[in-house]
Amino acid sequence: MNSTSTIYSFLDLLGTFVFALSGAVAARQKQLDMFGIFSIAFSVACGGGIIRDLCIGAIPPAGLTDWRYLVMVLLASVITMGFYRVVNVFNQPVLIFDALGLSVFAVTGARKAIFFGHNYEVAVLLGMVTAVGGGVIRDILLNRIPVIMTKEIYASAAMVGAIIVVGGEYLRYPKEIVAIVAIVSCFGLRFLSLHFHWDLPSFGDQEKGKTK
Amino acid sequence: MNSTSTIYSFLDLLGTFVFALSGAVAARQKQLDMFGIFSIAFSVACGGGIIRDLCIGAIPPAGLTDWRYLVMVLLASVITMGFYRVVNVFNQPVLIFDALGLSVFAVTGARKAIFFGHNYEVAVLLGMVTAVGGGVIRDILLNRIPVIMTKEIYASAAMVGAIIVVGGEYLRYPKEIVAIVAIVSCFGLRFLSLHFHWDLPSFGDQEKGKTK
Amino acid sequence: MNSTSTIYSFLDLLGTFVFALSGAVAARQKQLDMFGIFSIAFSVACGGGIIRDLCIGAIPPAGLTDWRYLVMVLLASVITMGFYRVVNVFNQPVLIFDALGLSVFAVTGARKAIFFGHNYEVAVLLGMVTAVGGGVIRDILLNRIPVIMTKEIYASAAMVGAIIVVGGEYLRYPKEIVAIVAIVSCFGLRFLSLHFHWDLPSFGDQEKGKTK
Repeated sequence: MNSTSTIYSFLDLLGTFVFALSGAVAARQKQLDMFGIFSIAFSVACGGGIIRDLCIGAIPPAGLTDWRYLVMVLLASVITMGFYRVVNVFNQPVLIFDALGLSVFAVTGARKAIFFGHNYEVAVLLGMVTAVGGGVIRDILLNRIPVIMTKEIYASAAMVGAIIVVGGEYLRYPKEIVAIVAIVSCFGLRFLSLHFHWDLPSFGDQEKGKTK
Repeated sequence: MNSTSTIYSFLDLLGTFVFALSGAVAARQKQLDMFGIFSIAFSVACGGGIIRDLCIGAIPPAGLTDWRYLVMVLLASVITMGFYRVVNVFNQPVLIFDALGLSVFAVTGARKAIFFGHNYEVAVLLGMVTAVGGGVIRDILLNRIPVIMTKEIYASAAMVGAIIVVGGEYLRYPKEIVAIVAIVSCFGLRFLSLHFHWDLPSFGDQEKGKTK
Repeated sequence: MNSTSTIYSFLDLLGTFVFALSGAVAARQKQLDMFGIFSIAFSVACGGGIIRDLCIGAIPPAGLTDWRYLVMVLLASVITMGFYRVVNVFNQPVLIFDALGLSVFAVTGARKAIFFGHNYEVAVLLGMVTAVGGGVIRDILLNRIPVIMTKEIYASAAMVGAIIVVGGEYLRYPKEIVAIVAIVSCFGLRFLSLHFHWDLPSFGDQEKGKTK
């Protein structure tokens, strides 16, 4: 049990770090200053969790009280500012770590909502918010339509992870096994969609042709 | 009393559905994918109420716990994705339903704030937020200046509705009658402004001419 | 003590007024209507404090309950709509009042977080959020990248103010003296950065040159 929660903490911090890295890189590409890079990194890494905590009544939000998250964000910001070539080299790994962060956040988000006594709908919705909320805030701050709404299986993978957590809770399966299945499913779905360029259907194109 | 609350629930769900529809249509026009359409529909329909609930301490927000809202949002999304021609035909009715949603949300928002024991200022401000917050979130996500800030009498109609609720509360008039008067006033104001193209004054033009 | 808190209230309202003024002017320049000008003014003046209050559990947020803030916002909106030339004349003073608002909000934000029993990390982060959150919301609503992330020492000045408050708390120095030192430091840093055009380093330029 103790070693499980250690693994969780590790994955959680890894997810935070990678999300922060993705934010810092995007901010740097938009030529923001030091503070801008740090803020965007912080928003991506902690934004989703802060919204979740406000909605379930976990005051103050963990993203504001736990210094380890702050350290991850600072680390990611410094690396992006000082060692940008390193980040570029790691492009492919970043996508994979990001998929891991997505999976872990979806699962921990849904579990935290259940732990606070809320119903399954709240758990699924806030699992998704935890996983993708930070990325949405990043895109709002960088003044573009959130990328997760326009392409790729991303939030839907998070939804699958959160639904597995809720399903396992309903069937009273062992929490740890359910969590592993959920993480693996979400990660696998996201990984496969990246590899095979799966997209969700969109409907705007037809409309251009006047919806024959 | 029971039938009144049934009518309320019906209007509330109708408002949710129409707001979701307006969000889904806007998302489709921006060529977002399935998840994007659903997210924007959800944000428009439930976003204002979620902000209100966070501010008055109604945790977790009703928009996340009540499955009926989710069903309305799913329904609106599916219709927009699968039966877009139907939505186009209903363009005029949508504007009218939207005005009804606005009125109902302004009144229920103000009443909920009062019910939670907050003062009249909170009730008016959060009545407005409930009514227009979702539309503002939609426009932020779609990367444009919120349309309610640039033209038409929209938020101001919501304000009138919320103020009538607060005034009735202060004068201890019967809640149900006050609510009906408030809904009719807000709806009428919005409807007339649509019909006669009333706008609130703006001041930018003078400035272009260098503030003669 | 009583006179100190009077001075605080005065500075707090002055900060609110000037922040509202900056929002109203920006909204007018984007040709928003009356309601748009008021909303942006309100968001800049009260937005940061509302986010802070949600995060520390101060429900409902002070920005929604205290009528004096509303009066400041209304006043700033009316002046911007009716007496725009006056605002233009005061351009330089507005920058200085804005720096004062920044300093006061950073200090009161950090103090309120400590007063609600939260830790030092929360106090520093929410001191900054109180000071700059409104401006970020303004820029999101006006559909541009938040200006504080791209240039000038602004949020970093707020951070210095909040850190001084936290340091004074840790060392148990007298609160009032610490607050004055923090306000003066933050204001001085912001003022000097305006005067000498200090910027935080940004890293996008190098990248254009392919990160030699």
